[in-house]
Amino acid sequence: MFRFFADINNISAAAIKLSDEDSKHIRSLRLRPDEKFIVCDGNSTEYVCTLDQPDKFTNAVIISSHNSKSEPTVSCKSYIAFSKGDRLDYAVQKLVELGINEIILFKSSRCVAIPHDIPKKVTRLQRIVLETAKMSGRGIIPKVSYSGDFEETITEALTESKLTLFFYENEEKLNIKSILNQHFPDGDENKINNNKHISIITGPEGGFTEQEVEYSRSKKIPVVSLGSRVLRSETAPVVALAAIMYHTDNL
Amino acid sequence: MFRFFADINNISAAAIKLSDEDSKHIRSLRLRPDEKFIVCDGNSTEYVCTLDQPDKFTNAVIISSHNSKSEPTVSCKSYIAFSKGDRLDYAVQKLVELGINEIILFKSSRCVAIPHDIPKKVTRLQRIVLETAKMSGRGIIPKVSYSGDFEETITEALTESKLTLFFYENEEKLNIKSILNQHFPDGDENKINNNKHISIITGPEGGFTEQEVEYSRSKKIPVVSLGSRVLRSETAPVVALAAIMYHTDNL
Repeated sequence: MFRFFADINNISAAAIKLSDEDSKHIRSLRLRPDEKFIVCDGNSTEYVCTLDQPDKFTNAVIISSHNSKSEPTVSCKSYIAFSKGDRLDYAVQKLVELGINEIILFKSSRCVAIPHDIPKKVTRLQRIVLETAKMSGRGIIPKVSYSGDFEETITEALTESKLTLFFYENEEKLNIKSILNQHFPDGDENKINNNKHISIITGPEGGFTEQEVEYSRSKKIPVVSLGSRVLRSETAPVVALAAIMYHTDNL
Repeated sequence: MFRFFADINNISAAAIKLSDEDSKHIRSLRLRPDEKFIVCDGNSTEYVCTLDQPDKFTNAVIISSHNSKSEPTVSCKSYIAFSKGDRLDYAVQKLVELGINEIILFKSSRCVAIPHDIPKKVTRLQRIVLETAKMSGRGIIPKVSYSGDFEETITEALTESKLTLFFYENEEKLNIKSILNQHFPDGDENKINNNKHISIITGPEGGFTEQEVEYSRSKKIPVVSLGSRVLRSETAPVVALAAIMYHTDNL
């Protein structure tokens, strides 16, 4: 079934007012008069709908509603350093497919491509998030934001999360499985719920500096490896999230 | 350290003859006379080298050698259906970063973008594999090939692998963790070694047809889910491989 998101203020008990953009999209789909589609409120409730009138594309009639079945039981945030070219686009798309809750961009020492207009970049990535959330059947629209420089980002992550993981390619001792086993022993569902905000911090193409790694260690943030092969900056957060989703039975 | 691959026939006990392309690359890097670099034989042996003469870029002198530390303990093959645009490029790059052993392209019913010149496509992807293998520090160069149509591919996968997994977005019962736990219980390293060829089969943008799913079931291939969110055709094999690498302690 085709999927759309609607602003919660446009949803009444029986009907939903669709956005102009979604109305145009629905028109182009040439739905049959009784063809069902899903409108999600972006807050994990999904409404099965049909068009009110087959030639009017702005009003959807609600047939039934249910909770989204696609949201994971863990809430993960990806703090991702600015990267060149379309690397962020790629990472953002894959993170949304995998079930990320929030994406936060930041600056670090070795970032070689910090956009002149950061709010524009955020808006562009938020657009990719929306399209991907529809395609992958998400029940929420993950938010994209910008947290500032490295130290501000570490402070925010520590305030917002129960567990913060700092990924570093030169770390050789602590791997992601050890740390996840320690915090979320298999089957310990309560512990997962108690620790449900997990933050993933990953660097730019050039990696983090030793000073940044030491700063994270000084804040008691575990510095974690993703294996012995070097992952590109857009791959690391996706692999980290895939591992967390796998570990917590969300794959 | 910079990394290169050399043909095993060009490696003698004390020196390595570099390819014209690598020689040009080394020239452009302006290495210091004593600067070390790594040349790998593509068979998991790595040679630490310097240039024979600082202004000659075709001969490397071997200082020491060691086994590659980056190859995973499981050998995985990704059977991946033809997909549109740069989706295959992306999947191939990420699979190599994550430690894939071999990539095999195939045709299935819903493929909308089968290249006219398949050998050319294979060559192009093999080029991406080589560049990625250097960047990510692989000890081998994973091979790209083409296996033919769907049924030929299933036959090949069954012949070549100890465990074949068929990923299907509409599968609701069997998830990847259940099947990996069943075949590779935690810590059962011998069992992993006995079953070391794992094949991952994933479909095109439009997914597999019900007939294709039934055909796989009829051959006793487990039909497996990757969770309740719909993954794009280029994301599914990467997430499946990340899960396998995580499960088998290779992340």
